[in-house]
Amino acid sequence: MAQQQKVKTAITPTRSEDYPEWYQQVIKNADLAENSPVRGCMVIRPWGYSLWENIQKVLDTKFKATGHENAYFPLFIPKSFLEKEAEHVEGFAKECAVVTHHRLEVGADGKLVPAGPLEEPLIVRPTSETIIGAMFSKWVQSYRDLPLLINQWANVVRWEMRTRLFLRTAEFLWQEGHTAHATKEEAEIETKLMLDVYADFAENYMAMPVIKGEKTAVERFPGAVSTYCIEAMMQDCKALQAGTSHFLGQNFAKASEIKFLDSTGKEEFAWTTSWGVSTRLIGGLIMTHGDDDGLIVPPRLAPSHIVILPVVHEDNAASVYEYCDSLAAQLRKQNYNSGLVSVIVDKREGRGGDKVWSWIKKGIPLYLEIGPRDMASGSVFVGRRDKSRKERYSQSRSEFVATIANLLDDIQKSLHDKAIAFRDAHTRKIDSKDEFYEYFTPNNKEKPEIHGGFALAHWNGSSEVEKQIKEDLNVTIRCIPIDAPSEDGKCVITGEPSQRRVIFAKSY
Amino acid sequence: MAQQQKVKTAITPTRSEDYPEWYQQVIKNADLAENSPVRGCMVIRPWGYSLWENIQKVLDTKFKATGHENAYFPLFIPKSFLEKEAEHVEGFAKECAVVTHHRLEVGADGKLVPAGPLEEPLIVRPTSETIIGAMFSKWVQSYRDLPLLINQWANVVRWEMRTRLFLRTAEFLWQEGHTAHATKEEAEIETKLMLDVYADFAENYMAMPVIKGEKTAVERFPGAVSTYCIEAMMQDCKALQAGTSHFLGQNFAKASEIKFLDSTGKEEFAWTTSWGVSTRLIGGLIMTHGDDDGLIVPPRLAPSHIVILPVVHEDNAASVYEYCDSLAAQLRKQNYNSGLVSVIVDKREGRGGDKVWSWIKKGIPLYLEIGPRDMASGSVFVGRRDKSRKERYSQSRSEFVATIANLLDDIQKSLHDKAIAFRDAHTRKIDSKDEFYEYFTPNNKEKPEIHGGFALAHWNGSSEVEKQIKEDLNVTIRCIPIDAPSEDGKCVITGEPSQRRVIFAKSY
Repeated sequence: MAQQQKVKTAITPTRSEDYPEWYQQVIKNADLAENSPVRGCMVIRPWGYSLWENIQKVLDTKFKATGHENAYFPLFIPKSFLEKEAEHVEGFAKECAVVTHHRLEVGADGKLVPAGPLEEPLIVRPTSETIIGAMFSKWVQSYRDLPLLINQWANVVRWEMRTRLFLRTAEFLWQEGHTAHATKEEAEIETKLMLDVYADFAENYMAMPVIKGEKTAVERFPGAVSTYCIEAMMQDCKALQAGTSHFLGQNFAKASEIKFLDSTGKEEFAWTTSWGVSTRLIGGLIMTHGDDDGLIVPPRLAPSHIVILPVVHEDNAASVYEYCDSLAAQLRKQNYNSGLVSVIVDKREGRGGDKVWSWIKKGIPLYLEIGPRDMASGSVFVGRRDKSRKERYSQSRSEFVATIANLLDDIQKSLHDKAIAFRDAHTRKIDSKDEFYEYFTPNNKEKPEIHGGFALAHWNGSSEVEKQIKEDLNVTIRCIPIDAPSEDGKCVITGEPSQRRVIFAKSY
Repeated sequence: MAQQQKVKTAITPTRSEDYPEWYQQVIKNADLAENSPVRGCMVIRPWGYSLWENIQKVLDTKFKATGHENAYFPLFIPKSFLEKEAEHVEGFAKECAVVTHHRLEVGADGKLVPAGPLEEPLIVRPTSETIIGAMFSKWVQSYRDLPLLINQWANVVRWEMRTRLFLRTAEFLWQEGHTAHATKEEAEIETKLMLDVYADFAENYMAMPVIKGEKTAVERFPGAVSTYCIEAMMQDCKALQAGTSHFLGQNFAKASEIKFLDSTGKEEFAWTTSWGVSTRLIGGLIMTHGDDDGLIVPPRLAPSHIVILPVVHEDNAASVYEYCDSLAAQLRKQNYNSGLVSVIVDKREGRGGDKVWSWIKKGIPLYLEIGPRDMASGSVFVGRRDKSRKERYSQSRSEFVATIANLLDDIQKSLHDKAIAFRDAHTRKIDSKDEFYEYFTPNNKEKPEIHGGFALAHWNGSSEVEKQIKEDLNVTIRCIPIDAPSEDGKCVITGEPSQRRVIFAKSY
């Protein structure tokens, strides 16, 4: 068979050639982030950090609108605090950064050596339940102090052995919400409210479809009574847990002594929750929308919406720049997404082609190439990042400006639609064990990452079955969907009766 | 002499009774922050964190308007990096948090013990010049990559032995700008530009007058060629260094190998700068404006501008709440300071007096006590936090709403004016050594913190003289003012000729 002619793409390798390497190359070519000299820690570059700032802006507004306030707690956690909650120790004390000294001294060889040993080692927070719990126990005295609704934007550290930019790094940025309530019901409502906030954000800002569900006991947050999550499908058909919300019952309240007098004067333990999303979301954004030409950013989170690329020769540069600058000024006055349209005019030196492709790889939603012919006809030449280069079109300048918000909305919607279609095409209801095993067995041994996708299957509720599947196929139950109807069926593995399907998948 | 009757204040002790303790009590009573179980680390509570968010918002906008982009660099710095720049090692390697292990294991007694020793210890960043330098050396290749204008919002750790909330804590929040330039001149312009940004922010947002100046060699940032600062006077007449901007010459570029090819193809080291402000600014805000009733927040940084306190009895609660809510809704539509007016309606249970005082102690600019009589006359009863309780006044509701932005501007200006007047009243030109020593010698041995204030005096430029004054009086040269005219004179200590006065003061 003759080899097909290879279509040139801006990213090498393509997704189908080598998905994990494609992911790294998209990040590199979009200047999103890179590895640092500190093992497992990343440097987030301005284009990537700007995505995080936009994520923060939207979520922070939503947190405040639901009554939460931001605060800041210490980076360090005393070792004894981590020892307080038994399951939590198991889950978080294992791989973490331990501070043991508070000084460096010059040693005999002129090099610096740690000195001033600490009486009690300090742990760089992997999550802040225990230290925040200690503060809550001081702040909460009476039912009048409840609910206490706090959020923190912070860096956390988990000493991961195998790291991948944004998805799994030793240090990452996140927000962690921590709340305390007078009743179990209120805490449960809070847990689901924040899950809804996350799902709304994922769908309507990231244009990333997610399934809301509950984790099984095996996958629960260490110390939680129940863990809820949003799960998204990446383009390699693997699941990404994009956010979690935990109902902690009274476990942490008991460990930290968060007690209050109720309205009858009786002392009770509070009911607490915690919930978080992290810079991992950026990994999800990349793998939901990116293509073989690089990143594609949904307009509602884009650092900039439009780049204008003046096509100039020496003799016309001034007039082309003037046209582009006045176009940019007009566009910047247009409202979009409760803000204004953001425009870059790229006057850098360099070849026009290289410049256009640098923006395509960065995923900017719209790129306009403007030269003397566009000026003469009072038009703009429009490239949509969500469509191919062949679909660029010319439009009157005034019409383009007047309809820019609609165009950005249309791109936002098209990305969401495409992602839903992809997920639907790679989701299957499976009712037999053979089909289940076949679905998750790669066709191509060299590409173990390629497989069926999400399997909706019945499950008997047994952790043993879960573990067996994980061992055999490296597949886990991503969640028990909240919104799915109950349905009589039989466990896909054991044949035992089951009332609802759960989602099985490989995952990040 | 008969003891004067003590006027009751909301904060005990008063500033004149015990200034350091007054400071702690203002923070406590305003719910700004508190000490945490981790030695030297503070917890910033929502009202305090909200101040920091407002500081961030304004500064971040200014940084971006001057061409800077945000990025994020690792929390950890390899020990070897700190060893690269000789003076920098001296300045920062001494007291810092050292991570030596990456795991905790359960020991024989069931307690957790550090395990997994690191090959090279990691330092929790006290400042990021060295790690950012390492990245800049990769990013900068050609003059086309310059200038590189980066800012980072982050937490940093310096292991302080004696800590004080906001002013000196082991962990604090800050921003650190780091820039690289092709020429010395450009880097110097950048250094001063950012100093101006800080000064503008201090004067026009914090309402805190500052003096811009250069540090002497003794007070310079470790590794810098020159350090510029803004210095403010607190109400105990001590100076607070509120922000610094450093011209680093080629020192860090050489240590980190930040090299570029200039337009002629010649390899050169870049010229770098760094500049930062921190949560220390909140300490400055407290000590500039606070009074014996607690915090006073300048309107342009206030978490909320107005609190409405409904004065209700059981039979009228509904109608009073309605009046207050509709007033709040009207006010929230008014523009102020490129945003909208922020209003809290305080419907908490509790005694009216306690509630009013809780807001006075938090420093909210305006508090409105609204009862049936105000409703009947369509008016509001206005308390300005910058004036005494006796000066409260009644005003027609419509007029109050229509002029709210002017009123907030007036409060902002009155705070600034008052602070300038205070500083001027405690600044003196001093030309004799005797007067100088007397100025800085406390009248009252029990209150060493009370002394003259800022002394403007001639100095011969000698570090020896500086050290002697520090030893004798605990007074340092805060800065060599930039904007002061040159003036022939004689060093206040040695009588040697001098061309300009510098500022001497005790300081935080």
